[in-house]
Amino acid sequence: MHAYRSHTCGQLREADVGTTARLSGWVHRVRDHGGLLFIDLRDHYGITQCVADPDSPAFRLAETVRSEWVIRVDGEVRRRPPETVNANLATGAIEVFITAIEVLSAAAELPLPVFGEPDYPEEIRLKYRFLDLRRERLHRNIVKRSAIISSLRRRMIESGFTEFQTPILTASSPEGARDFLVPSRLHPGKFYALPQAPQQFKQLTMIAGFDRYFQIAPCFRDEDARADRSPGEFYQLDIEMSFVTQDDVFAAVEPVLRGVFEEFADGKPVTQSFPRIPYAEAMRKYGSDKPDLRNPIVMEAVSEHFRGSGFKVFANILASDPDAEVWAIPAPGGGNRAFCDRMNTWAQGEGQPGLGYIFFREGEGAGPVAKNIGPERTAAIRAQLRLGDGDAVFFVAGKPKLFAAFAGNARRKIGEDLGLIDKDRFEFCWIVDFPMFEWNEDEKKIDFSHNPFSMPQGGLEALETKDPLEILAYQYDVVCNGIELSSGAIRNHKPEIMRKAFAIAGYGEDVLEAKFGGMLRALQYGAPPHGGIAPGVDRIVMLLCGEENLRQVVMFPMNQQAQDLMLGAPSEVSAKQLRELHIRVVPPA
Amino acid sequence: MHAYRSHTCGQLREADVGTTARLSGWVHRVRDHGGLLFIDLRDHYGITQCVADPDSPAFRLAETVRSEWVIRVDGEVRRRPPETVNANLATGAIEVFITAIEVLSAAAELPLPVFGEPDYPEEIRLKYRFLDLRRERLHRNIVKRSAIISSLRRRMIESGFTEFQTPILTASSPEGARDFLVPSRLHPGKFYALPQAPQQFKQLTMIAGFDRYFQIAPCFRDEDARADRSPGEFYQLDIEMSFVTQDDVFAAVEPVLRGVFEEFADGKPVTQSFPRIPYAEAMRKYGSDKPDLRNPIVMEAVSEHFRGSGFKVFANILASDPDAEVWAIPAPGGGNRAFCDRMNTWAQGEGQPGLGYIFFREGEGAGPVAKNIGPERTAAIRAQLRLGDGDAVFFVAGKPKLFAAFAGNARRKIGEDLGLIDKDRFEFCWIVDFPMFEWNEDEKKIDFSHNPFSMPQGGLEALETKDPLEILAYQYDVVCNGIELSSGAIRNHKPEIMRKAFAIAGYGEDVLEAKFGGMLRALQYGAPPHGGIAPGVDRIVMLLCGEENLRQVVMFPMNQQAQDLMLGAPSEVSAKQLRELHIRVVPPA
Repeated sequence: MHAYRSHTCGQLREADVGTTARLSGWVHRVRDHGGLLFIDLRDHYGITQCVADPDSPAFRLAETVRSEWVIRVDGEVRRRPPETVNANLATGAIEVFITAIEVLSAAAELPLPVFGEPDYPEEIRLKYRFLDLRRERLHRNIVKRSAIISSLRRRMIESGFTEFQTPILTASSPEGARDFLVPSRLHPGKFYALPQAPQQFKQLTMIAGFDRYFQIAPCFRDEDARADRSPGEFYQLDIEMSFVTQDDVFAAVEPVLRGVFEEFADGKPVTQSFPRIPYAEAMRKYGSDKPDLRNPIVMEAVSEHFRGSGFKVFANILASDPDAEVWAIPAPGGGNRAFCDRMNTWAQGEGQPGLGYIFFREGEGAGPVAKNIGPERTAAIRAQLRLGDGDAVFFVAGKPKLFAAFAGNARRKIGEDLGLIDKDRFEFCWIVDFPMFEWNEDEKKIDFSHNPFSMPQGGLEALETKDPLEILAYQYDVVCNGIELSSGAIRNHKPEIMRKAFAIAGYGEDVLEAKFGGMLRALQYGAPPHGGIAPGVDRIVMLLCGEENLRQVVMFPMNQQAQDLMLGAPSEVSAKQLRELHIRVVPPA
Repeated sequence: MHAYRSHTCGQLREADVGTTARLSGWVHRVRDHGGLLFIDLRDHYGITQCVADPDSPAFRLAETVRSEWVIRVDGEVRRRPPETVNANLATGAIEVFITAIEVLSAAAELPLPVFGEPDYPEEIRLKYRFLDLRRERLHRNIVKRSAIISSLRRRMIESGFTEFQTPILTASSPEGARDFLVPSRLHPGKFYALPQAPQQFKQLTMIAGFDRYFQIAPCFRDEDARADRSPGEFYQLDIEMSFVTQDDVFAAVEPVLRGVFEEFADGKPVTQSFPRIPYAEAMRKYGSDKPDLRNPIVMEAVSEHFRGSGFKVFANILASDPDAEVWAIPAPGGGNRAFCDRMNTWAQGEGQPGLGYIFFREGEGAGPVAKNIGPERTAAIRAQLRLGDGDAVFFVAGKPKLFAAFAGNARRKIGEDLGLIDKDRFEFCWIVDFPMFEWNEDEKKIDFSHNPFSMPQGGLEALETKDPLEILAYQYDVVCNGIELSSGAIRNHKPEIMRKAFAIAGYGEDVLEAKFGGMLRALQYGAPPHGGIAPGVDRIVMLLCGEENLRQVVMFPMNQQAQDLMLGAPSEVSAKQLRELHIRVVPPA
């Protein structure tokens, strides 16, 4: 017989009754039922109930075992008495009558229980992560994470992509965030950087003639932690394709995302065909470029109903600024003064002067705004927004650029507070047609809106003839339930277009050469049209596990202060190591 | 029609004749055959011959294109004239008659040709890696590497393993090599280390209750480069299993390695059942713990034939040292004075006094040794080694420990020089039963032979009762064609055995705590028996691609000086970056 097990702890069934089994695992819990000892034995695969009575030769040893000891049990598989069958357990029809026990490894007193009491301070959980990981929810999340990544890989390969590894010790790449640096021993005073993303390498892979690249790629950013971003490292499904348009990227990526979500969504519906929403439209309808489409609220401009109206605040705003607009945020089912006042108070807490509203009851609009604009305009607004009794509508006014984000937040809050959001769905969309440039009010100059490597729509001609702020880019995001999973773009593969784009953003040839010289050189030797995207793996897993904290879906995460409390990182190093790396520590003043 | 292609450059066949196709790719080469222009168009998938004659509206543009330009070609698929069909090309039955060309991206003068002339200086090849990668052999290697890794993953998953990602920013782990360090911004004076291997994390994964772990894991060692080891980073197929014996590890890993080699060996035979050779036996038979079993030579001890013989050098060595032995290295087919003298000269070049030999012809032994020991002993040696006319045998004498490595080298050279090694096979073996400890002659103390985390055979009892130098470990290597693919071990999962093992090697509790405190703590809370291995991915790919330089199987490797010549790493960083990281550069004196 095998030294440790004939079966796993999740394997024995009624058909095994009468046979002898050997199991190894952790003592999940021990119960003493009047002389009968029940040991729930747990391993990666499941739990098996083992029993010893005082007649068992192993009884005395069985009495000594404690939670989380690792033991080997030999015994006879018996049918459980009908009243003790556990239908929730795969092995619930049987139990193992213990004939022998070997203690493989005892456990000291636990700083963190594995069975029971789920809430425990984060610091303890991270220091004893190996115990926390034995707990059911975290264990299940981590296994699901692996299955999701494995499925992403399989789907990418089946779609004709090839996984390539790009370097981790590399050059600083100008992604905008802070690099982690690695001092070079052989080149004093010089440093490697860990990649913020394999952006340059994946483009070089295309320039090298590999047609369809992907990688489950580790990425590193030395930024402060957020709930949805690990301090330090995270993974993305990095993708790049040659000889493609934006539509080809969507056609490649959409089935992979839809497929993996359908596979792991536990039956929740997933968007079948991702709508494509231009950036400008998303801002107008949802006040956000990452709209949660589970929220049915769609905003509309209602400026004309307020122009010259008796609601002077809005009428004056519209009269004094040609760019000003009034937007309406419908609130189906929010048609009562209590709700509208609560929203108004919330808006003031957000630093707004307030939130104008009308609510509808008994066929007419109520509240101060309705009173001021009169019944005709009120009825017109109601008709435009298709509202009825019991509904409300909120208004924001001014320059849309300045209020759009707030309006988007109000839309979200209304949707949540009125229970309009169906949590049991995954709603995807593409946001397309992002502007290539934006006006930087602080520096009074034109900047890149997003990635300077994106191809402007209309190419060189657009750059040479159009108002830069009117130029759109082949730049897109994929969004799920209001969470941005990734940005992507068709890249600028022509050096002359790149030079022109950088010139518009005020960067000279020298900056371009210093920051992107390697890339620019590569584009000179025959670069194919190419584009890609890089959905965040951790965010996908969080969505599919229903978790809101990244540490619930990463096996060995650091804490918010970027420390590994289990193994003790970062830590001090020896003087010899520093000498070899030609650096010295300079403590903060 | 698609903007760039209706087909790839490897797709068109005779069945497509008469249809219209759009292709995009790189101009592989252009030939002008008396007015007819032939453009070989290349992409990731293949090459298609495109033709323009002066009647084609695209002829004038076609005349301008140069090697490595990226172009789009529209044209009519035609059957090639029979005499120009190219059977070596998948598309060799057809050609595309060009009706239109679009230049997608021109190429500047190439620093490195893609077509033709394969040898080019390494520095140029690395600086323009994106061009070098377009060349057939490297392109094929990199694609094969991906396929091998993908196959390894599939096989591991099918065997019930789960892939988990372990941290890359982590604590310094005492693997013996030099760490790459990453200064912490949030914790002045402290550093992360990049993992030399995920050794501690994979053991913690087992302690956390995940039964069968694997990972295609990036590993980092700041060691000087070798042909078979990248400077900086490399990948290993990291594996760990719980509740296993050494046999279980072999049973899990052997089919994966055999399978992947059979899949990618282009029909070369692969060892079906890997022999298990104890370390001591490997040293005696092959003079190496990584024997190349394609070499049929097996060494044997022949001390008794020399004891008290007329060959005084050996007789005296044997008489004066009870540990001394004489080993014979048979050389089938090496039975002539010229070969034997050449080996003798080689040995002197290796710093040896010489290499005694006998060669056999016309039924008797020849050479000085045979003369000295006489025909009877010569015949006995010949009989023991089953040698015949035309064969030779070489001898080494002294303490086996001191001459074994040289004897192993001699065995290898004899095998190679006599053409005894069948290069078209993959011969695997396990080396088992490595000693737990060894004598450190410099420091006059007992040291760990290999991994201090390995379980000693016989456990605590062996440590308490046996001569430490006699204790074997559950420590093993897997070797292919004389190349060590990996070490592995059943781990020591019991803190008390670990303390005792460290005490024998002269390490106090304080050292153990300081260096392995995190691990030791984890072992106290119920650790399962576990073990694993970590075959080197790069070495596997090198073997299967028939390459001897790692840079031939890595997409974007650094040069021997650990520089990325393409993107320029390592590089200088800004004073602000250094300030944020609380370090200062100290140039070498």
